[in-house]
Amino acid sequence: MRLALFNKGRLGLVVGDDLVDVTDQVAGADTAGPVGALQRYVEAVADGETARFEAAGRPRIPLAEAVLEAPLPRPGKIIGAPVNYLDHKAEMEYTTSVADLGVFLKANSSVIGPGQDILLPYSDKRTDQEGELGVVIGRTASHVSTDEALDHVFGYTCVLDITVRSGEDRSTRKSFDTFTPLGPWIVTADEIPDPDALDLRCDVGGTTRQRTNTTDLIFGVRELIAYTSSVMTLHPGDVIATGTPAGVGPLSHGDRVVLDIEKVGRLEVGVDGSRATPYDQRPGHRGR
Amino acid sequence: MRLALFNKGRLGLVVGDDLVDVTDQVAGADTAGPVGALQRYVEAVADGETARFEAAGRPRIPLAEAVLEAPLPRPGKIIGAPVNYLDHKAEMEYTTSVADLGVFLKANSSVIGPGQDILLPYSDKRTDQEGELGVVIGRTASHVSTDEALDHVFGYTCVLDITVRSGEDRSTRKSFDTFTPLGPWIVTADEIPDPDALDLRCDVGGTTRQRTNTTDLIFGVRELIAYTSSVMTLHPGDVIATGTPAGVGPLSHGDRVVLDIEKVGRLEVGVDGSRATPYDQRPGHRGR
Repeated sequence: MRLALFNKGRLGLVVGDDLVDVTDQVAGADTAGPVGALQRYVEAVADGETARFEAAGRPRIPLAEAVLEAPLPRPGKIIGAPVNYLDHKAEMEYTTSVADLGVFLKANSSVIGPGQDILLPYSDKRTDQEGELGVVIGRTASHVSTDEALDHVFGYTCVLDITVRSGEDRSTRKSFDTFTPLGPWIVTADEIPDPDALDLRCDVGGTTRQRTNTTDLIFGVRELIAYTSSVMTLHPGDVIATGTPAGVGPLSHGDRVVLDIEKVGRLEVGVDGSRATPYDQRPGHRGR
Repeated sequence: MRLALFNKGRLGLVVGDDLVDVTDQVAGADTAGPVGALQRYVEAVADGETARFEAAGRPRIPLAEAVLEAPLPRPGKIIGAPVNYLDHKAEMEYTTSVADLGVFLKANSSVIGPGQDILLPYSDKRTDQEGELGVVIGRTASHVSTDEALDHVFGYTCVLDITVRSGEDRSTRKSFDTFTPLGPWIVTADEIPDPDALDLRCDVGGTTRQRTNTTDLIFGVRELIAYTSSVMTLHPGDVIATGTPAGVGPLSHGDRVVLDIEKVGRLEVGVDGSRATPYDQRPGHRGR
Protein backbone atom coordinates (compact mmCIF):
# COMPACT_ATOMS: atom_id res chain seq x y z
CA MET A 1 0.00 0.00 0.00
CA ARG A 2 0.91 3.60 -0.50
CA LEU A 3 -0.53 5.78 2.27
CA ALA A 4 -0.64 9.54 2.16
CA LEU A 5 -1.92 12.53 4.08
CA PHE A 6 -3.77 15.08 1.96
CA ASN A 7 -6.18 18.00 2.05
CA LYS A 8 -5.55 19.09 5.66
CA GLY A 9 -4.96 15.82 7.41
CA ARG A 10 -7.11 13.32 5.52
CA LEU A 11 -5.69 9.80 5.31
CA GLY A 12 -5.56 8.49 1.76
CA LEU A 13 -4.84 5.16 0.13
CA VAL A 14 -3.10 5.69 -3.19
CA VAL A 15 -4.73 3.53 -5.88
CA GLY A 16 -3.14 4.07 -9.26
CA ASP A 17 -3.33 7.80 -9.91
CA ASP A 18 -6.12 8.31 -7.41
CA LEU A 19 -6.58 8.71 -3.69
CA VAL A 20 -9.27 6.99 -1.68
CA ASP A 21 -10.12 8.78 1.56
CA VAL A 22 -9.91 6.17 4.35
CA THR A 23 -9.77 8.54 7.32
CA ASP A 24 -12.97 7.17 8.79
CA GLN A 25 -11.57 3.64 8.75
CA VAL A 26 -8.98 4.39 11.46
CA ALA A 27 -10.16 5.10 15.00
CA GLY A 28 -8.98 8.47 16.22
CA ALA A 29 -7.57 9.48 12.82
CA ASP A 30 -9.78 12.55 12.51
CA THR A 31 -8.68 13.88 15.91
CA ALA A 32 -4.99 13.00 15.68
CA GLY A 33 -3.83 16.63 15.95
CA PRO A 34 -0.30 17.53 14.91
CA VAL A 35 0.96 13.93 14.80
CA GLY A 36 -1.51 13.21 12.02
CA ALA A 37 -3.87 10.47 10.91
CA LEU A 38 -1.18 8.24 9.41
CA GLN A 39 0.66 8.18 12.75
CA ARG A 40 -2.55 6.90 14.33
CA TYR A 41 -2.77 4.20 11.68
CA VAL A 42 0.84 3.11 12.28
CA GLU A 43 0.05 2.85 16.00
CA ALA A 44 -3.15 0.92 15.33
CA VAL A 45 -1.22 -1.63 13.28
CA ALA A 46 1.42 -1.86 16.01
CA ASP A 47 -1.32 -2.55 18.51
CA GLY A 48 -2.53 -5.45 16.38
CA GLU A 49 -5.85 -3.84 15.52
CA THR A 50 -7.24 -5.07 12.21
CA ALA A 51 -6.26 -2.49 9.70
CA ARG A 52 -7.32 -3.40 6.21
CA PHE A 53 -8.79 -0.68 4.11
CA GLU A 54 -11.96 -0.92 2.13
CA ALA A 55 -11.42 0.99 -1.10
CA ALA A 56 -13.98 -0.64 -3.38
CA GLY A 57 -16.93 1.53 -4.26
CA ARG A 58 -15.54 4.60 -2.51
CA PRO A 59 -15.11 7.93 -4.28
CA ARG A 60 -11.69 8.53 -5.81
CA ILE A 61 -9.84 11.83 -5.90
CA PRO A 62 -7.26 12.24 -8.68
CA LEU A 63 -3.79 12.64 -7.12
CA ALA A 64 -3.26 15.67 -9.37
CA GLU A 65 -6.17 17.45 -7.69
CA ALA A 66 -5.16 16.67 -4.09
CA VAL A 67 -2.70 18.61 -1.96
CA LEU A 68 -0.37 16.01 -0.50
CA GLU A 69 1.14 16.67 2.93
CA ALA A 70 4.01 15.12 4.86
CA PRO A 71 2.76 11.61 5.72
CA LEU A 72 4.12 12.03 9.27
CA PRO A 73 3.98 15.77 10.04
CA ARG A 74 5.58 15.34 13.46
CA PRO A 75 7.30 11.99 13.97
CA GLY A 76 8.25 10.86 17.46
CA LYS A 77 11.93 10.86 16.55
CA ILE A 78 13.87 11.59 13.39
CA ILE A 79 17.15 9.73 13.45
CA GLY A 80 19.97 10.23 10.97
CA ALA A 81 23.06 8.26 9.99
CA PRO A 82 25.96 10.68 9.57
CA VAL A 83 28.23 9.05 7.00
CA ASN A 84 26.69 5.94 5.56
CA TYR A 85 27.65 5.69 1.89
CA LEU A 86 31.18 4.81 0.84
CA ASP A 87 31.35 7.63 -1.74
CA HIS A 88 30.01 10.33 0.63
CA LYS A 89 32.45 9.09 3.25
CA ALA A 90 35.33 9.73 0.83
CA GLU A 91 33.84 13.10 -0.13
CA MET A 92 33.65 14.26 3.49
CA GLU A 93 37.05 12.82 4.40
CA TYR A 94 35.67 10.83 7.29
CA THR A 95 37.41 7.66 8.32
CA THR A 96 34.84 6.14 10.65
CA SER A 97 31.33 4.64 10.42
CA VAL A 98 27.99 4.77 12.24
CA ALA A 99 29.03 2.59 15.20
CA ASP A 100 31.83 5.08 15.88
CA LEU A 101 30.07 8.33 14.95
CA GLY A 102 26.70 7.36 16.40
CA VAL A 103 23.37 8.45 15.01
CA PHE A 104 22.12 12.03 15.30
CA LEU A 105 18.65 13.44 15.90
CA LYS A 106 16.69 16.03 13.94
CA ALA A 107 13.87 18.05 15.50
CA ASN A 108 10.45 16.66 14.64
CA SER A 109 9.34 20.27 14.08
CA SER A 110 11.46 20.42 10.92
CA VAL A 111 9.15 18.33 8.71
CA ILE A 112 7.49 19.68 5.56
CA GLY A 113 5.56 17.88 2.84
CA PRO A 114 5.67 17.67 -0.94
CA GLY A 115 5.46 20.99 -2.77
CA GLN A 116 6.43 23.07 0.25
CA ASP A 117 9.56 25.21 0.45
CA ILE A 118 12.82 24.68 2.28
CA LEU A 119 13.61 28.03 3.95
CA LEU A 120 17.29 28.96 3.83
CA PRO A 121 18.22 30.45 7.22
CA TYR A 122 21.49 32.17 6.36
CA SER A 123 22.46 34.31 3.39
CA ASP A 124 26.16 33.60 3.82
CA LYS A 125 26.34 29.93 4.86
CA ARG A 126 25.87 26.93 2.62
CA THR A 127 22.68 24.94 3.05
CA ASP A 128 22.95 21.55 1.34
CA GLN A 129 20.50 18.93 0.17
CA GLU A 130 20.97 15.32 1.25
CA GLY A 131 18.62 12.84 -0.39
CA GLU A 132 17.95 9.68 1.61
CA LEU A 133 15.81 6.60 1.96
CA GLY A 134 13.56 7.00 5.02
CA VAL A 135 12.55 4.03 7.17
CA VAL A 136 9.33 4.30 9.18
CA ILE A 137 9.26 2.15 12.28
CA GLY A 138 6.14 0.04 12.75
CA ARG A 139 6.78 -1.97 15.89
CA THR A 140 8.64 -0.99 19.04
CA ALA A 141 12.28 -2.04 18.68
CA SER A 142 14.78 -2.35 21.51
CA HIS A 143 18.04 -4.28 21.13
CA VAL A 144 16.82 -6.10 18.03
CA SER A 145 19.18 -8.17 15.89
CA THR A 146 19.82 -7.55 12.20
CA ASP A 147 17.79 -10.69 11.45
CA GLU A 148 14.75 -9.33 13.28
CA ALA A 149 15.17 -5.70 12.21
CA LEU A 150 12.89 -5.61 9.17
CA ASP A 151 10.02 -7.06 11.22
CA HIS A 152 9.95 -3.67 12.94
CA VAL A 153 9.53 -1.61 9.78
CA PHE A 154 6.18 -0.16 8.81
CA GLY A 155 7.32 1.22 5.48
CA TYR A 156 9.55 3.54 3.50
CA THR A 157 9.47 7.10 2.30
CA CYS A 158 11.74 9.75 0.76
CA VAL A 159 13.58 12.07 3.15
CA LEU A 160 15.63 15.15 2.44
CA ASP A 161 18.04 15.82 5.26
CA ILE A 162 18.73 19.52 4.78
CA THR A 163 21.89 20.73 6.49
CA VAL A 164 23.65 24.03 7.10
CA ARG A 165 27.44 23.82 6.78
CA SER A 166 28.49 25.71 9.89
CA GLY A 167 30.05 24.87 13.23
CA GLU A 168 27.09 23.99 15.45
CA ASP A 169 25.99 20.59 16.69
CA ARG A 170 24.45 18.49 13.91
CA SER A 171 21.09 18.63 15.70
CA THR A 172 21.06 22.40 15.21
CA ARG A 173 22.41 22.46 11.67
CA LYS A 174 19.82 19.91 10.55
CA SER A 175 16.78 21.02 12.57
CA PHE A 176 15.76 24.39 11.19
CA ASP A 177 12.06 24.52 10.37
CA THR A 178 11.46 23.01 6.88
CA PHE A 179 14.75 21.02 6.96
CA THR A 180 13.11 17.58 6.74
CA PRO A 181 10.98 17.26 3.61
CA LEU A 182 9.18 13.91 3.84
CA GLY A 183 6.97 12.02 1.42
CA PRO A 184 5.20 11.96 -0.91
CA TRP A 185 3.68 9.00 0.96
CA ILE A 186 4.70 5.88 2.84
CA VAL A 187 5.02 2.61 0.95
CA THR A 188 4.35 -0.30 3.30
CA ALA A 189 7.18 -2.74 3.90
CA ASP A 190 5.48 -5.67 2.16
CA GLU A 191 6.07 -3.92 -1.17
CA ILE A 192 9.82 -3.60 -0.58
CA PRO A 193 11.20 -6.92 0.67
CA ASP A 194 14.79 -5.70 0.25
CA PRO A 195 15.33 -2.02 1.10
CA ASP A 196 19.05 -2.38 0.42
CA ALA A 197 18.64 -2.59 -3.36
CA LEU A 198 16.86 0.62 -4.41
CA ASP A 199 17.99 3.16 -6.98
CA LEU A 200 18.06 6.68 -5.57
CA ARG A 201 18.44 9.94 -7.46
CA CYS A 202 18.38 13.51 -6.29
CA ASP A 203 18.14 16.44 -8.71
CA VAL A 204 18.53 20.10 -7.81
CA GLY A 205 17.60 22.82 -10.29
CA GLY A 206 17.28 20.25 -13.07
CA THR A 207 20.75 18.76 -12.54
CA THR A 208 21.32 15.32 -11.07
CA ARG A 209 23.52 15.69 -8.00
CA GLN A 210 23.14 12.35 -6.31
CA ARG A 211 22.71 8.96 -7.91
CA THR A 212 23.25 5.73 -6.08
CA ASN A 213 21.70 2.45 -5.06
CA THR A 214 21.00 1.64 -1.42
CA THR A 215 23.14 -1.45 -1.90
CA ASP A 216 26.07 0.94 -1.32
CA LEU A 217 24.93 1.77 2.21
CA ILE A 218 27.72 0.99 4.68
CA PHE A 219 25.15 0.18 7.37
CA GLY A 220 22.18 -1.27 5.53
CA VAL A 221 18.66 -0.80 6.87
CA ARG A 222 18.85 -3.94 9.03
CA GLU A 223 22.17 -2.97 10.59
CA LEU A 224 21.06 0.62 11.15
CA ILE A 225 17.92 -0.49 12.99
CA ALA A 226 19.91 -3.01 15.06
CA TYR A 227 22.52 -0.41 16.04
CA THR A 228 20.04 2.39 16.76
CA SER A 229 17.76 0.12 18.78
CA SER A 230 20.76 -0.80 20.96
CA VAL A 231 20.96 2.86 21.98
CA MET A 232 17.37 4.05 22.03
CA THR A 233 14.01 2.29 21.87
CA LEU A 234 12.36 2.88 18.52
CA HIS A 235 8.62 3.52 18.57
CA PRO A 236 5.96 3.21 15.86
CA GLY A 237 6.17 6.26 13.62
CA ASP A 238 9.82 7.04 14.31
CA VAL A 239 11.75 7.81 11.13
CA ILE A 240 15.31 6.81 10.30
CA ALA A 241 17.04 8.72 7.52
CA THR A 242 19.55 6.16 6.30
CA GLY A 243 22.31 8.50 5.17
CA THR A 244 23.26 10.31 2.00
CA PRO A 245 25.50 9.41 -0.94
CA ALA A 246 28.06 11.69 -2.57
CA GLY A 247 26.82 14.79 -4.31
CA VAL A 248 25.58 17.05 -1.53
CA GLY A 249 25.65 20.67 -2.60
CA PRO A 250 24.36 24.16 -1.89
CA LEU A 251 20.74 25.18 -2.40
CA SER A 252 19.74 28.52 -3.89
CA HIS A 253 16.56 30.54 -3.85
CA GLY A 254 14.18 29.20 -6.49
CA ASP A 255 15.74 25.73 -6.78
CA ARG A 256 13.50 22.70 -7.14
CA VAL A 257 14.74 19.62 -5.29
CA VAL A 258 13.52 16.25 -6.56
CA LEU A 259 14.27 13.01 -4.76
CA ASP A 260 13.30 9.85 -6.60
CA ILE A 261 13.62 6.43 -4.97
CA GLU A 262 12.77 3.23 -6.81
CA LYS A 263 9.54 1.59 -5.57
CA VAL A 264 9.10 4.39 -3.01
CA GLY A 265 8.19 7.55 -4.87
CA ARG A 266 9.19 11.00 -5.96
CA LEU A 267 9.38 13.89 -3.51
CA GLU A 268 9.63 17.42 -4.87
CA VAL A 269 10.04 20.62 -2.86
CA GLY A 270 11.11 24.21 -3.50
CA VAL A 271 13.77 26.45 -1.97
CA ASP A 272 13.04 29.90 -0.56
CA GLY A 273 15.99 32.08 0.36
CA SER A 274 14.05 35.33 0.60
CA ARG A 275 14.13 35.37 4.40
CA ALA A 276 17.78 34.37 4.83
CA THR A 277 19.82 36.63 7.10
CA PRO A 278 23.57 36.99 7.74
CA TYR A 279 24.99 34.33 10.05
CA ASP A 280 26.50 36.95 12.35
CA GLN A 281 23.02 38.32 13.06
CA ARG A 282 21.72 35.09 14.63
CA PRO A 283 20.29 35.56 18.13
CA GLY A 284 22.80 35.21 20.91
CA HIS A 285 25.85 35.70 18.72
CA ARG A 286 28.23 37.98 20.55
CA GLY A 287 30.75 38.76 17.85
CA ARG A 288 34.46 38.26 18.14
CA MET B 1 0.83 24.82 40.94
CA ARG B 2 2.85 21.66 41.10
CA LEU B 3 1.54 19.05 38.64
CA ALA B 4 2.58 15.42 38.65
CA LEU B 5 1.86 12.13 36.96
CA PHE B 6 1.36 9.24 39.35
CA ASN B 7 -0.03 5.71 39.69
CA LYS B 8 0.11 4.75 35.99
CA GLY B 9 -0.70 7.97 34.25
CA ARG B 10 -3.04 9.79 36.65
CA LEU B 11 -2.71 13.58 36.68
CA GLY B 12 -2.22 14.98 40.14
CA LEU B 13 -2.19 18.42 41.69
CA VAL B 14 0.32 18.56 44.53
CA VAL B 15 -1.22 20.24 47.57
CA GLY B 16 1.16 20.30 50.51
CA ASP B 17 2.22 16.70 51.06
CA ASP B 18 -0.78 15.31 49.22
CA LEU B 19 -1.88 14.66 45.67
CA VAL B 20 -5.34 15.44 44.38
CA ASP B 21 -6.33 13.37 41.33
CA VAL B 22 -7.51 15.83 38.66
CA THR B 23 -7.33 13.51 35.63
CA ASP B 24 -11.04 13.82 34.95
CA GLN B 25 -10.78 17.62 34.81
CA VAL B 26 -8.73 17.57 31.58
CA ALA B 27 -10.40 16.42 28.36
CA GLY B 28 -8.56 13.49 26.81
CA ALA B 29 -6.22 13.07 29.76
CA ASP B 30 -7.28 9.51 30.47
CA THR B 31 -6.61 8.43 26.86
CA ALA B 32 -3.40 10.39 26.30
CA GLY B 33 -1.31 7.27 25.66
CA PRO B 34 2.48 7.47 25.86
CA VAL B 35 2.62 11.29 25.82
CA GLY B 36 0.72 11.34 29.10
CA ALA B 37 -2.05 13.30 30.78
CA LEU B 38 0.11 16.27 31.72
CA GLN B 39 1.08 16.76 28.06
CA ARG B 40 -2.65 16.98 27.28
CA TYR B 41 -3.07 19.58 30.00
CA VAL B 42 -0.16 21.67 28.66
CA GLU B 43 -1.79 21.58 25.22
CA ALA B 44 -5.19 22.49 26.65
CA VAL B 45 -3.69 25.56 28.32
CA ALA B 46 -1.90 26.47 25.07
CA ASP B 47 -5.21 26.24 23.25
CA GLY B 48 -6.73 28.70 25.71
CA GLU B 49 -9.14 26.24 27.22
CA THR B 50 -10.06 27.10 30.78
CA ALA B 51 -7.85 24.98 32.91
CA ARG B 52 -8.34 25.66 36.57
CA PHE B 53 -8.43 22.71 38.87
CA GLU B 54 -11.01 22.08 41.52
CA ALA B 55 -9.23 20.51 44.48
CA ALA B 56 -11.59 21.37 47.31
CA GLY B 57 -13.51 18.47 48.75
CA ARG B 58 -11.69 15.88 46.64
CA PRO B 59 -9.93 12.89 48.15
CA ARG B 60 -6.24 13.37 48.88
CA ILE B 61 -3.51 10.80 48.44
CA PRO B 62 -0.39 11.26 50.58
CA LEU B 63 2.62 11.84 48.29
CA ALA B 64 4.49 9.20 50.26
CA GLU B 65 1.95 6.59 49.20
CA ALA B 66 1.87 7.50 45.50
CA VAL B 67 4.27 6.31 42.81
CA LEU B 68 5.34 9.43 40.95
CA GLU B 69 6.19 9.13 37.26
CA ALA B 70 7.96 11.40 34.80
CA PRO B 71 5.58 14.35 34.35
CA LEU B 72 6.18 14.23 30.57
CA PRO B 73 6.99 10.59 29.72
CA ARG B 74 7.61 11.35 26.04
CA PRO B 75 8.11 15.06 25.30
CA GLY B 76 7.88 16.30 21.72
CA LYS B 77 11.50 17.42 21.81
CA ILE B 78 14.23 17.40 24.44
CA ILE B 79 16.72 20.15 23.72
CA GLY B 80 20.02 20.60 25.51
CA ALA B 81 22.51 23.43 25.84
CA PRO B 82 26.02 21.99 25.56
CA VAL B 83 28.22 24.30 27.62
CA ASN B 84 26.19 26.86 29.46
CA TYR B 85 27.80 27.51 32.83
CA LEU B 86 31.03 29.44 33.13
CA ASP B 87 32.61 26.91 35.49
CA HIS B 88 31.67 23.84 33.40
CA LYS B 89 33.01 25.65 30.36
CA ALA B 90 36.38 25.98 32.06
CA GLU B 91 36.22 22.36 33.22
CA MET B 92 35.61 21.07 29.70
CA GLU B 93 38.15 23.43 28.10
CA TYR B 94 35.63 24.81 25.65
CA THR B 95 36.06 28.34 24.37
CA THR B 96 32.71 28.93 22.71
CA SER B 97 29.06 29.30 23.74
CA VAL B 98 25.59 28.14 22.69
CA ALA B 99 25.26 30.43 19.65
CA ASP B 100 28.45 28.86 18.29
CA LEU B 101 27.98 25.27 19.46
CA GLY B 102 24.25 25.14 18.83
CA VAL B 103 21.78 23.16 20.88
CA PHE B 104 21.60 19.38 20.75
CA LEU B 105 18.68 16.97 20.86
CA LYS B 106 18.05 13.99 23.13
CA ALA B 107 15.69 11.16 22.15
CA ASN B 108 12.27 11.51 23.78
CA SER B 109 12.44 7.76 24.45
CA SER B 110 15.14 8.35 27.07
CA VAL B 111 12.86 9.73 29.81
CA ILE B 112 12.41 8.04 33.20
CA GLY B 113 10.68 9.28 36.32
CA PRO B 114 11.54 9.65 40.01
CA GLY B 115 12.72 6.48 41.71
CA GLN B 116 13.59 4.69 38.50
CA ASP B 117 17.09 3.55 37.54
CA ILE B 118 19.56 4.97 35.06
CA LEU B 119 20.92 1.95 33.15
CA LEU B 120 24.65 2.16 32.42
CA PRO B 121 25.21 0.90 28.86
CA TYR B 122 28.96 0.26 28.93
CA SER B 123 31.14 -1.40 31.53
CA ASP B 124 34.28 0.36 30.32
CA LYS B 125 33.12 3.86 29.40
CA ARG B 126 32.29 6.68 31.78
CA THR B 127 28.63 7.61 32.12
CA ASP B 128 28.26 10.98 33.85
CA GLN B 129 25.47 12.80 35.62
CA GLU B 130 24.60 16.35 34.58
CA GLY B 131 22.03 18.08 36.80
CA GLU B 132 20.03 20.81 35.09
CA LEU B 133 17.05 23.12 35.32
CA GLY B 134 14.41 21.98 32.81
CA VAL B 135 12.12 24.44 31.05
CA VAL B 136 8.76 23.15 29.79
CA ILE B 137 7.38 25.09 26.83
CA GLY B 138 3.76 26.17 27.15
CA ARG B 139 3.07 28.16 24.00
CA THR B 140 4.41 27.66 20.49
CA ALA B 141 7.55 29.75 20.07
CA SER B 142 9.16 30.71 16.78
CA HIS B 143 11.70 33.52 16.51
CA VAL B 144 10.71 35.00 19.86
CA SER B 145 12.77 37.74 21.50
CA THR B 146 14.35 37.47 24.93
CA ASP B 147 11.69 39.89 26.22
CA GLU B 148 8.86 37.63 25.07
CA ALA B 149 10.57 34.33 25.87
CA LEU B 150 9.14 33.66 29.33
CA ASP B 151 5.59 34.12 28.02
CA HIS B 152 6.14 30.81 26.24
CA VAL B 153 7.07 28.85 29.35
CA PHE B 154 4.60 26.49 30.99
CA GLY B 155 6.78 25.62 33.93
CA TYR B 156 9.98 24.13 35.30
CA THR B 157 11.23 20.75 36.36
CA CYS B 158 14.45 18.95 37.28
CA VAL B 159 16.34 17.20 34.46
CA LEU B 160 19.31 14.90 34.62
CA ASP B 161 21.13 14.87 31.30
CA ILE B 162 22.98 11.56 31.49
CA THR B 163 25.92 11.29 29.09
CA VAL B 164 28.39 8.64 28.00
CA ARG B 165 31.91 9.97 27.50
CA SER B 166 32.79 8.39 24.17
CA GLY B 167 33.25 9.52 20.59
CA GLU B 168 29.75 9.42 19.10
CA ASP B 169 27.44 12.30 18.25
CA ARG B 170 25.99 13.93 21.36
CA SER B 171 22.52 12.74 20.37
CA THR B 172 23.71 9.15 20.70
CA ARG B 173 25.78 9.61 23.85
CA LYS B 174 22.85 11.31 25.60
CA SER B 175 19.91 9.29 24.27
CA PHE B 176 20.27 5.83 25.72
CA ASP B 177 17.04 4.63 27.33
CA THR B 178 16.80 5.99 30.92
CA PHE B 179 19.24 8.87 30.18
CA THR B 180 16.76 11.67 30.87
CA PRO B 181 15.36 11.45 34.40
CA LEU B 182 12.65 14.11 34.68
CA GLY B 183 10.57 15.33 37.61
CA PRO B 184 9.41 14.94 40.25
CA TRP B 185 6.72 17.27 38.87
CA ILE B 186 6.32 20.49 36.91
CA VAL B 187 6.06 23.77 38.81
CA THR B 188 4.07 26.26 36.77
CA ALA B 189 5.84 29.42 35.63
CA ASP B 190 3.77 31.77 37.80
CA GLU B 191 5.56 30.39 40.86
CA ILE B 192 9.02 31.17 39.45
CA PRO B 193 9.04 34.70 38.04
CA ASP B 194 12.83 34.62 37.63
CA PRO B 195 14.23 31.24 36.55
CA ASP B 196 17.73 32.70 36.42
CA ALA B 197 18.11 32.91 40.20
CA LEU B 198 17.64 29.37 41.51
CA ASP B 199 20.01 27.35 43.68
CA LEU B 200 20.81 23.97 42.16
CA ARG B 201 22.55 21.04 43.81
CA CYS B 202 23.29 17.56 42.56
CA ASP B 203 24.47 14.78 44.87
CA VAL B 204 25.73 11.37 43.80
CA GLY B 205 26.21 8.59 46.32
CA GLY B 206 25.75 11.05 49.20
CA THR B 207 28.43 13.46 47.97
CA THR B 208 27.61 16.86 46.52
CA ARG B 209 29.11 17.07 43.04
CA GLN B 210 27.39 20.09 41.57
CA ARG B 211 26.33 23.25 43.35
CA THR B 212 25.45 26.42 41.55
CA ASN B 213 22.82 29.06 41.00
CA THR B 214 21.14 29.51 37.64
CA THR B 215 22.31 33.12 37.75
CA ASP B 216 25.61 31.69 36.45
CA LEU B 217 24.04 30.43 33.23
CA ILE B 218 25.86 31.93 30.24
CA PHE B 219 22.65 31.85 28.20
CA GLY B 220 19.86 32.41 30.71
CA VAL B 221 16.44 30.88 30.17
CA ARG B 222 15.21 33.86 28.12
CA GLU B 223 18.23 33.85 25.82
CA LEU B 224 18.15 30.09 25.41
CA ILE B 225 14.50 30.15 24.34
CA ALA B 226 15.14 33.06 21.97
CA TYR B 227 18.13 31.34 20.36
CA THR B 228 16.50 27.90 20.10
CA SER B 229 13.26 29.33 18.71
CA SER B 230 15.29 31.02 15.96
CA VAL B 231 16.35 27.55 14.78
CA MET B 232 13.34 25.35 15.49
CA THR B 233 9.75 26.03 16.43
CA LEU B 234 9.12 25.09 20.06
CA HIS B 235 5.82 23.38 20.80
CA PRO B 236 3.84 22.97 24.04
CA GLY B 237 5.44 20.20 26.09
CA ASP B 238 8.91 20.50 24.57
CA VAL B 239 11.62 20.47 27.23
CA ILE B 240 14.82 22.50 27.29
CA ALA B 241 17.61 21.28 29.57
CA THR B 242 19.44 24.50 30.29
CA GLY B 243 22.95 23.12 30.72
CA THR B 244 25.06 21.79 33.52
CA PRO B 245 27.51 23.43 35.93
CA ALA B 246 30.94 22.05 36.87
CA GLY B 247 31.07 18.77 38.74
CA VAL B 248 29.99 16.17 36.23
CA GLY B 249 31.37 12.77 37.14
CA PRO B 250 31.04 9.04 36.61
CA LEU B 251 28.10 7.01 37.86
CA SER B 252 28.49 3.58 39.43
CA HIS B 253 26.11 0.70 40.02
CA GLY B 254 24.10 1.36 43.15
CA ASP B 255 24.58 5.13 43.22
CA ARG B 256 21.68 7.38 44.15
CA VAL B 257 21.51 10.63 42.19
CA VAL B 258 19.66 13.52 43.80
CA LEU B 259 19.00 16.78 41.99
CA ASP B 260 17.55 19.57 44.08
CA ILE B 261 16.47 22.87 42.55
CA GLU B 262 15.13 25.74 44.63
CA LYS B 263 11.37 26.30 44.20
CA VAL B 264 11.23 23.41 41.70
CA GLY B 265 11.74 20.19 43.61
CA ARG B 266 13.93 17.23 44.34
CA LEU B 267 14.44 14.45 41.81
CA GLU B 268 16.00 11.21 42.97
CA VAL B 269 16.91 8.19 40.82
CA GLY B 270 19.10 5.11 41.10
CA VAL B 271 21.90 3.70 38.95
CA ASP B 272 21.94 0.15 37.62
CA GLY B 273 25.13 -1.10 35.99
CA SER B 274 24.22 -4.77 36.07
CA ARG B 275 23.48 -4.91 32.35
CA ALA B 276 26.50 -2.91 31.17
CA THR B 277 28.56 -4.53 28.42
CA PRO B 278 32.01 -3.79 26.97
CA TYR B 279 32.05 -0.89 24.50
CA ASP B 280 33.71 -3.02 21.83
CA GLN B 281 30.73 -5.38 21.85
CA ARG B 282 28.23 -2.75 20.72
CA PRO B 283 26.26 -3.75 17.60
CA GLY B 284 27.90 -2.77 14.34
CA HIS B 285 31.36 -2.23 15.78
CA ARG B 286 33.86 -3.76 13.41
CA GLY B 287 37.02 -3.63 15.47
CA ARG B 288 40.27 -2.08 14.36
